[in-house]
Order: sequence, then structure tokens, then C-alpha cells
Amino acid sequence: MKSLAELVSQMQAADFAAAAQRIAPYVIESPLLPFHGEMSRAVRLKAENLQQLGSFKLRAAFNTLLHAAESRPVASVATASAGNFAQGLALAAARLGARLTVHLPDTAAQVKRDSLATLGATTVVHPFNDWWQILMTRDTGADDGWFVHPVCEPDVIVGNGTIGGELLRQWPHVDTVVIPIGGGGLACGIALSLRALGRKVRIIGCEVETAAPLGPALRAGHPVRIERKPTFIDGIGSNCVLDDMWPLLRELIDDVVVVSLDEARAALRALALRNRVIVEGAGAVALAAATSDRCPGDNVVAILSGGNIDRTVLCDILQAAAHV
Amino acid sequence: MKSLAELVSQMQAADFAAAAQRIAPYVIESPLLPFHGEMSRAVRLKAENLQQLGSFKLRAAFNTLLHAAESRPVASVATASAGNFAQGLALAAARLGARLTVHLPDTAAQVKRDSLATLGATTVVHPFNDWWQILMTRDTGADDGWFVHPVCEPDVIVGNGTIGGELLRQWPHVDTVVIPIGGGGLACGIALSLRALGRKVRIIGCEVETAAPLGPALRAGHPVRIERKPTFIDGIGSNCVLDDMWPLLRELIDDVVVVSLDEARAALRALALRNRVIVEGAGAVALAAATSDRCPGDNVVAILSGGNIDRTVLCDILQAAAHV
Repeated sequence: MKSLAELVSQMQAADFAAAAQRIAPYVIESPLLPFHGEMSRAVRLKAENLQQLGSFKLRAAFNTLLHAAESRPVASVATASAGNFAQGLALAAARLGARLTVHLPDTAAQVKRDSLATLGATTVVHPFNDWWQILMTRDTGADDGWFVHPVCEPDVIVGNGTIGGELLRQWPHVDTVVIPIGGGGLACGIALSLRALGRKVRIIGCEVETAAPLGPALRAGHPVRIERKPTFIDGIGSNCVLDDMWPLLRELIDDVVVVSLDEARAALRALALRNRVIVEGAGAVALAAATSDRCPGDNVVAILSGGNIDRTVLCDILQAAAHV
Repeated sequence: MKSLAELVSQMQAADFAAAAQRIAPYVIESPLLPFHGEMSRAVRLKAENLQQLGSFKLRAAFNTLLHAAESRPVASVATASAGNFAQGLALAAARLGARLTVHLPDTAAQVKRDSLATLGATTVVHPFNDWWQILMTRDTGADDGWFVHPVCEPDVIVGNGTIGGELLRQWPHVDTVVIPIGGGGLACGIALSLRALGRKVRIIGCEVETAAPLGPALRAGHPVRIERKPTFIDGIGSNCVLDDMWPLLRELIDDVVVVSLDEARAALRALALRNRVIVEGAGAVALAAATSDRCPGDNVVAILSGGNIDRTVLCDILQAAAHV
């Protein structure tokens, strides 16, 4: 059986184009906006935070379910996710009339359980370690249908990659794309689609200093376990790069820019006060990296991956400084 | 001498196209975004709050100064504006190397005053009623150059109207446009350009209950002085419709929807929490009107006119309710 890396590396421009066409009724072509703050190079913002449910994950969720439904009935679906992907999948499952069971760790906030319930999903809560085993084994311990992994799934990565084609149409002169590293599926999807389209664009992964496993992995030549400190930036950063994603990340990511928490907070403020858009921590990290002098490039796109931030956290950051 | 209404009523599609071309290097084609909140009809958002400086006024300001500069030198300019137009004019004046004096009402948000200073404009603050007199007479009481009226100026109205052509390209099926009524120049500009392009689209003016002079004027058949209560919605609403604008408003505005302060606050929250964009009060009024059952139409565009809101006001409104 082919590995995930082998499967997605074979994807052609036509595969990404088919995915884009498939999901078009359910996502927006997110605007590419000029950053209005201070910068020493041209920086534009791919505003995926403006998608329904506030994240790029809708692309992956719809592409995965709709693609499957083209060749077979999709009646029951399960996933293990604590966040945005599960919501996107819930919306996609509802469109197809499929049942969805979401397996959540007991650490998941009640608001996320409620939100999934509102979208029609059944939720099952597990002790954290049991939940992690589901992610590793894809075995939910129940007969709840086709298991869709939130990261390590070819159609998830191709769905993410639909952003690449849009970018090239919106800004043919882009030379660098800065992408937040969660599981790595967003960065790899965009990198693969740009490569499939025959364009050499620099791919910069970005991480926050408190949870930055990719840089050490690239330097060591293998995944390295690191210390992770939880912060308001909850959408990216883990203890270790996923084994299944490592071959892709090693091949596709040109460099990593790590930003400080303060840089991320300043970027979040600038996006709200100059560009009038709200991002979650991961999106702020992308802008902070793109405007940093540690980032190469003349025509740089920052992927604003999502906008799901607690309003109290948002307002604390907005009001923390008197001036931007 | 021809009246303002006579002048702008003669504008052809070519005039709006020329303006669009003139300002293209300085503005974005603002995205038309689906509203992600609850609604009983299709509502899309023309996100002019995402423009540089956070407002549509850049279109008017650049069109006015650039058009004038095509035929004569522009060295000293003055205006009377609550903020957004003045900011745009400051940016345009800076591009042309012209001096700018801005006359402000004492109700203008501090963020707008700060921003004008940063942009290099001289500011003079007046009590609201004195400021209104400047708007009426175009007499600033000082020798501060060519007075550019923020509303009653043909090139201002034509600049605003460039939104109309974009709208039709972005959503050919639009049947209703909901536009905040400040001086009325935004609504009239869009209405005139849609008419020049041969499209019958319903034009709904929207006002907030605390400052709503247009509805009474349309019912009385002439401008009527009303009581005005200042609120966080500082970009629209006055004591009385401008005499110069009245013939245009009477002819071009099909109906008025008045929203409550609470409806405006709820719309502001929905835009931040569902669509992840920040609007000032006037933009929130447009969405509140567009989603109201008092508004007609099946394919409705709300013009999000601007995003310049004090962060304290924004956060007070965001945090006022536990749920949206």
C-alpha cells in the first residue's frame, strides 16, 4: 500500500483543479488583500479566515466527502478532531445527508461540543490518551462508518491545496508563501499544488516560539520531540511533527520562520486595526513571519488560516497596547 | 450654473469607468462576501471596510484630487469631514504634494483624529453645529485653499459610484443594495452608476433610529429637521438632509429602513464573530437593515462602508453579549 506521501506526491494540476471545482459551491475564493500596515516588502493576505466557519478547513472537509460520494454512497462518517476540521466535516456531512460522529478529547471546550451538536454531529468524548490512540490507529472502537483523518488524508491535503491555484491567479508575481504549521497539511497542500502548476514558489513554514517542532526536525533530519507551552495560539504547534507528514514536510518546506508571542500579538492587532479582519493566533503568526526581516522574498503572501478566536482573548490583545 | 443634481445626473457609464480607471492604483476592488450569519434571503457584503484607511471614501478622495490635477495644479485643499473622507483626502493630497486642512466635528472618533495627524493633515475641531455650518456654506473661516465638500461634489459622487460597476460584475443578479445614509453621496453615487449602466436595482437607504432624517424628508416631500442623538454610530445621520443632495435622494432612493441601536450592535457582533470583519457603526447599520424583514429583495447587498471604530467601543459591543 502506498504511503500518504507517495499518494499525494503523484497529484497533478488536474487533481487540484477538480478539487477546486468540486468545492466551489461551498467555499469562497478568499480575497488576496494588501496588508495595510508597515512593511519593507509587498505583503498580501490570503484571507481564509473569511470562509464560512472561519477557516480553510472547509476546503478539505468538502473535498474529502464530495470526492468519496462521486464513487460510492457516503452514509456514515467519523473523525477525531478537536477543532475547525470537525466543524467543516459536519457542514459537509449535513449537505450529503450523511451521519457524522466526532470523537473528541475530554480536554475539548464545551463550546466546541455545542457547536458541533448545532451542526448536527454526534459527539463522543474520550480520555485524552484514548483519543490520541484513535488519531494514530483510526480505530474509534465503534461501528460508526468511514474514518476521515483530519490531517493525513490525501483528499484533505488536495483540498487544502486548492488555495495554491487561487494564489497564482490572484498574484502571478508571488515568490514566497508563508504558511502556519499545524499538522502540516495546509503547507504541504499548497506546496504540492504550486509544484503541480509548474511554479517555483518559496514555501516558508511558520511557528510560534512556544510550540515549534518543525525547525528542529528539519535541522536534525528527523522528527524531534520538543517542549510545548500552551498559549492563545491554539491552532498550530505540537510536541512533534507527525510521522506520516514528515517526508512531505522535509521535501516541500524551504525554510521555517519562528515568531515570538509578542510578534504574533502585534500582528493580530495590526490585522484588526489596519486591515479590519479578525484572525486566530495561527493567522497572526503567518503575518508576523511574513513581515519579519527573518523572512526572505519580495512578493510575499501570508496565509491567514483562520479567524476562530475567543472574543475575550481578542479584546485583551486589542486593548493591551495604546498604539499600533 | 448647473446644480449638483443636474451635473451628476448627466454622468454616463463612461464617466464612472474613467473614475474607476483613475483610482485603480489606490483602491482595491473590495470583495463581495456572503454573510455567514442567519438570514432569510441571500445577503452579501461589499466590504469597503477592507480598503486602505478602512473606508470607501478613498474612492471619492482620489477621484476628486486626481481629476482636478489632470487640468490644473492642486496645492492647498480644505475639507469638512467626520473623518473617513478626510483620511482619504489626506492620502491623496500627500500623493500630489498638496497641503490639506481638515475641519472636524467634536463628535469624531479619536482614532480618526489620530489617523489624520499621522497622514500629515492639519486638523481643526469645531462644535458639531458650527461644523455643520461649514458643510452648508463651504466657508471654513480661513484661507485654507480649495474647499472639497465631502458629499456635494460631482467627482466625490462619481468616485463613490465606482462601487456600482464592481457590484454588477461581482453579482449580476443583485436586486437590492442597502446603503448607509450620511450625506447621501454614497447612496446617490452607487444609484447613479447602476442607472448609467442600465440596471434597475432597488436602492435602500438605511439610518439608525437616533439620527434618521431621510425617512421624514421622503414622507414630507422636503428636508425636515429632526432630533439627533449622538451614539457610537458616528459616520452617518445628521439633523437634516442636505439641500444640495435632496433632489438626488428624492429621485434615487427607493425606500428607507431605520434600524435600532440594538440591531446595529447585533449586526456589528455578527460581522465580527461570523464573518471575521470589523465595521464601524454605519457598516453595521447596513447589515442590520439588509437582514431585517423590513427590507425588500431576494439578492441583497449591504455596503459595509467603513471599519474605523475605536477599539474600546468595539470590544464593549463584542463582549456585551455571551452568545450571538
